Amino acid sequence: MAEMTEEKSEFKLIEWIRQQRQDEDAKDVITGIGDDMAVVLVGGRKLLITTDVLLEGVHFDLERATLEQVGYKAMACSLSDCAAMAAVPFVAVVAVALPKTMTMDQARQLHQGLQQAAEKYNCPIVGGDTTSWDKPLAIDVTMLAKAGLTEPVPRSGAQVGDVILVTGELGGSLRGRHLRFCPRVQESRLLAQMAELHAMIDISDGLSIDLNHICCESKVAAEIDAQAIPVSQAVRNLADPLTASLSDGEDFELLFCVSASDAEKLLREWPGRSSVCLSSVGRIIQAKSEQRLFIRQANGTIEPLEVKGWEHFSEL
Amino acid sequence: MAEMTEEKSEFKLIEWIRQQRQDEDAKDVITGIGDDMAVVLVGGRKLLITTDVLLEGVHFDLERATLEQVGYKAMACSLSDCAAMAAVPFVAVVAVALPKTMTMDQARQLHQGLQQAAEKYNCPIVGGDTTSWDKPLAIDVTMLAKAGLTEPVPRSGAQVGDVILVTGELGGSLRGRHLRFCPRVQESRLLAQMAELHAMIDISDGLSIDLNHICCESKVAAEIDAQAIPVSQAVRNLADPLTASLSDGEDFELLFCVSASDAEKLLREWPGRSSVCLSSVGRIIQAKSEQRLFIRQANGTIEPLEVKGWEHFSEL
Repeated sequence: MAEMTEEKSEFKLIEWIRQQRQDEDAKDVITGIGDDMAVVLVGGRKLLITTDVLLEGVHFDLERATLEQVGYKAMACSLSDCAAMAAVPFVAVVAVALPKTMTMDQARQLHQGLQQAAEKYNCPIVGGDTTSWDKPLAIDVTMLAKAGLTEPVPRSGAQVGDVILVTGELGGSLRGRHLRFCPRVQESRLLAQMAELHAMIDISDGLSIDLNHICCESKVAAEIDAQAIPVSQAVRNLADPLTASLSDGEDFELLFCVSASDAEKLLREWPGRSSVCLSSVGRIIQAKSEQRLFIRQANGTIEPLEVKGWEHFSEL
Repeated sequence: MAEMTEEKSEFKLIEWIRQQRQDEDAKDVITGIGDDMAVVLVGGRKLLITTDVLLEGVHFDLERATLEQVGYKAMACSLSDCAAMAAVPFVAVVAVALPKTMTMDQARQLHQGLQQAAEKYNCPIVGGDTTSWDKPLAIDVTMLAKAGLTEPVPRSGAQVGDVILVTGELGGSLRGRHLRFCPRVQESRLLAQMAELHAMIDISDGLSIDLNHICCESKVAAEIDAQAIPVSQAVRNLADPLTASLSDGEDFELLFCVSASDAEKLLREWPGRSSVCLSSVGRIIQAKSEQRLFIRQANGTIEPLEVKGWEHFSEL
């Protein structure tokens, strides 16, 4: 697959970009391209950075979302990246390309949504860039975070025998939840204090695609229990709620791996600490081929699980 | 003018956003919205942040620029912001919205341009976000910088009696120079070591508009000498080269204010230290009204100078 250089794919492009890096001499760069946030050293402290683009017609539709909701979501996506590293949001900068038809009032509404999330999660907006064009709205939020009491949690630390856990319920976010979701910033820091998190990611593209990221980075495979997936109410009435839960994007829940004993402890103690539900959904196994995901059906059979979800810049 | 809240203007929007800030309790934020870069404290060290958007059809035209040039320019704009603060570029993250029609090869060319600037100015790209849509190309570069041997230079420190200096030549950048300009990163740090820079900005929107920013932030006014403006070769043959030099955007030269004695020292010693030319173009005077810019013509008459240049999100 790696030889099919002309296959168009967001992930293949990122992989190519990673290969171009020449940051051997960048001794202050701890984690570069390929995790939820980059990690750099400033004044001896770990500083984390993420950037997230939201595009009209792709990530939101102004016929179904208010500008305030769009602003909130733009910040919340980056806050979710902070959660995925168990990091503490610090400050943000916001760059916007506004449609020329937008009024001052509408621009203010957008900012009010950004500001709501900034205040709720204590992450002030300290700068930005305002441009305009005769094209749809585009917003980019870049966020800095600091390491909390615990180390940043990478995607790459999953170990064979680990239990895979997930917060909240999955599937159907695009039916409305994606505009008002709560990034799991507090939950991830609490989890990091209660257990040693080996690997973590936020589910932005879909459980299967994001679990596959953890497996690739950790050089392991995973087995998911079909019956254990916490299916969201939004998809329970669909013909195939399981597929929606496994492949719908924008849930922005946490997906993470811990030792079996830590998993037991979390499942026992978590309900007394948080109202967000926590589910054990599978386990990390040895990787034997490029197929890294498997699913155990209700009848006990184990099948390969297709990596399916949202991918930008593909031919699909 | 300030009461006309419905007048549509990038700068009025930014002013409104500044008024919404509630970062009194954000004790780690030293400089927020309104300078070339925000300044925050991390591990006791000053860290600077800037974000810059480049839009197809606004900041570049793919019929006249290669994707490599566009990538280079995207990084160079943020590097120029670092120069404007006399800061040392550290790391960057790059977010792109790629047109769906773009090929993998084209995406790689864009990255190669970004990477060229990253390597030339020692500012590795440590992360990003790749999205795509059926709209034109948009690129956002967010850059972090560290304070160098000297403190970051704000826009707000110009003092009555200061001399106004500018690097390089002005005007006509859009005829080609904007795709290959050299951000004055080294020059600004050298200047900061040779003199006490009271206020500085990079000329991105045009000399008059950017000098007006310095004047507003410093609560002063300025008098420019028409004959002293270093007019670029690209506009010397125009009917009105002076206006082009005063109001053309994207020169990305440094515009700064120093005491009269420091100005004298710089004009004497600079030519031996750098091949970039340095011109004294005017002086800082007391502000007596909202009209902050004046121009001294060749015949000695002094007239108000219209603040004219590139402004996004205006009705114009």
